[in-house]
Amino acid sequence: MTSPAGLGGARVGCVLQAGVARVTLCHPGKFNAMSRAMWRQLRTVFEQIAATESLRCVHLSGADGHFCAGGDISEYPDFRFQINELHDFHENEVWAGLSAMLACDVPIVAQIAGNCMGAGLEIASCCDLRLAGASARLGAPIARLGFPMAPREAQLLVREVGWATVREMLLQAAVLDAAEMKARGFLHAVYGDAELLEQAQARVQQLLTLAPQAARRNKRSLRALAAATCVESTPLDAYDYADSAEQREGIAAFLSKRRARF
Amino acid sequence: MTSPAGLGGARVGCVLQAGVARVTLCHPGKFNAMSRAMWRQLRTVFEQIAATESLRCVHLSGADGHFCAGGDISEYPDFRFQINELHDFHENEVWAGLSAMLACDVPIVAQIAGNCMGAGLEIASCCDLRLAGASARLGAPIARLGFPMAPREAQLLVREVGWATVREMLLQAAVLDAAEMKARGFLHAVYGDAELLEQAQARVQQLLTLAPQAARRNKRSLRALAAATCVESTPLDAYDYADSAEQREGIAAFLSKRRARF
Amino acid sequence: MTSPAGLGGARVGCVLQAGVARVTLCHPGKFNAMSRAMWRQLRTVFEQIAATESLRCVHLSGADGHFCAGGDISEYPDFRFQINELHDFHENEVWAGLSAMLACDVPIVAQIAGNCMGAGLEIASCCDLRLAGASARLGAPIARLGFPMAPREAQLLVREVGWATVREMLLQAAVLDAAEMKARGFLHAVYGDAELLEQAQARVQQLLTLAPQAARRNKRSLRALAAATCVESTPLDAYDYADSAEQREGIAAFLSKRRARF
Repeated sequence: MTSPAGLGGARVGCVLQAGVARVTLCHPGKFNAMSRAMWRQLRTVFEQIAATESLRCVHLSGADGHFCAGGDISEYPDFRFQINELHDFHENEVWAGLSAMLACDVPIVAQIAGNCMGAGLEIASCCDLRLAGASARLGAPIARLGFPMAPREAQLLVREVGWATVREMLLQAAVLDAAEMKARGFLHAVYGDAELLEQAQARVQQLLTLAPQAARRNKRSLRALAAATCVESTPLDAYDYADSAEQREGIAAFLSKRRARF
Repeated sequence: MTSPAGLGGARVGCVLQAGVARVTLCHPGKFNAMSRAMWRQLRTVFEQIAATESLRCVHLSGADGHFCAGGDISEYPDFRFQINELHDFHENEVWAGLSAMLACDVPIVAQIAGNCMGAGLEIASCCDLRLAGASARLGAPIARLGFPMAPREAQLLVREVGWATVREMLLQAAVLDAAEMKARGFLHAVYGDAELLEQAQARVQQLLTLAPQAARRNKRSLRALAAATCVESTPLDAYDYADSAEQREGIAAFLSKRRARF
Repeated sequence: MTSPAGLGGARVGCVLQAGVARVTLCHPGKFNAMSRAMWRQLRTVFEQIAATESLRCVHLSGADGHFCAGGDISEYPDFRFQINELHDFHENEVWAGLSAMLACDVPIVAQIAGNCMGAGLEIASCCDLRLAGASARLGAPIARLGFPMAPREAQLLVREVGWATVREMLLQAAVLDAAEMKARGFLHAVYGDAELLEQAQARVQQLLTLAPQAARRNKRSLRALAAATCVESTPLDAYDYADSAEQREGIAAFLSKRRARF
């Protein structure tokens, strides 16, 4: 499997070795923020993983000491202010990437260091085991950027993060540390930053000793349970805030490195 | 907006100022227990809040160092023993008040001091951010009063408080302290009693800096998710315990300040 | 009510006394692992409990310092490799036992000492109050045995144990201690091993003082809420792994006391 390369080194890399797919979110200088190209690559990578029968585990991490800081906001002025493009971005690019992860039949171990925000939190929510370094910080502070979370992405977070924490993150722009997110049930374990990689590798090695078809069946079973209460699609008017002054101000302020005035 | 006044000072007050609705549960001498009139006022207050486009936040608290001790049991002999009146109380008065809160599109910060029982726990469950003082105590010990929780109120608690804790509260009459309810995921934060007000005000001030339309959209989105699995109404026979000896004994014992014999 | 006796002392015992049904899981030498006969007895015991109007509480525990170590694997070669027998075991014997517990209208207190694995965790998930000794260990490490969890049993665990922990238990074969399972919201309280019995008895005594019809109504109400999102049955092909090499190896390895090679 080749790792698609993007502009400026932004890419979702994937290396297959000995039953493990090592997937890396990489966007140098942007804490691995997801560009549109990276969302499309995420989908492709997980579709290839789904087609590889010999795999037993995915080990997902980010490059350079961070997991993923969110979306690549520098791209937002190009498409977020037009309703059809905004709908297409969330429903086709973002959700296609997350759906490919959710459709993955092998266990996914997330190794979460540093920033895990917005898109990063959504990607982590598609993983089965979530291990974090003590200095990791998690949230979805898009209320600072002037736009709401897409409904199906919010639904994913509600299931994995829980109602109370999702409300605090979306409405208060709360960013929580690893210990708090362990206490709230999102993270399975928190380790010292220096031992996170080793601990994640140990979990991956242990997964390789367990029954692979049982894992695939369990994942399908749990997916069917989750699907039983999920909405299938989102109406276009969920995105009719595209051209709002609020979203324009939030994104403009971020890109100008000033505080938004709402 | 005027604050309706009730008999003996029992009222749900509301003051609008600078984008914030400050709502106060007030029932002197009864730890702000909800009378029927207060339930109706709660509905009216939140309907007025919903109609005020300029609002960005609701700050909800109770008067005199408590949040709300439950229902006003002194009124119960007047209506709880007749099935139609009991149905009307829960389905129209209580649920109308809670529904108005759930329909509120702006973030609601609950400042929870002292007693937060029964009706108080239900009202807190309609809030987005729940901050408590260290000495707060939470529960729904109606098993001592001889009656069950109305089904839709139980459904609300299951979503916000969680299955395990709801069972312990309803079946065991458990009353839990703030630290335990933080650990169980219901409370977002616990502060020393003396700093609770200041911390709640700081959260309110921070909410005022965030994107208001994004908050309203996020709340509508989360409400739609919650509604997807909610029952719409309750059959009359859910209330056919109205005339039971058990409920009569529980309420009589409470009002006589003796222990009920079930 | 008589306690059915099984081969070698394996049985689900039940003694009724003063409004309490004391149910004991007992399988000497196997940490109370559930045999097929015990699953049938569990159903019968809870059907008898349901028919006894005077009962107010069930106190469930295991014999000899353990709760229940899972299924009786020594029986598995007799039926797990044929799809119809496997389906019948899970859908009729196991689910019938668990269903009888879930249909129980009186509060069930689980006293969880030592091993609480697989079937034991499922049985504990049907209880209303879960009290554990500090040395209890909980999990469902069937990924070591080469087979997945039956879908409705997984659904039960998702509701009671939570998505994140179910994934860790099923996919990673994680076994968690009592303190961790308290932190994750499954256990209501953890006590020193030596005081567990006394604390459980105190909870039972307190339940006897509370309104019995209110408890029955609350349990029916909560059951209706849970049922609203539950699947009704499982297609046969959920069991088409019956004759798989993977399940054969897992069970053979366990019975030979060697490590399975998957």
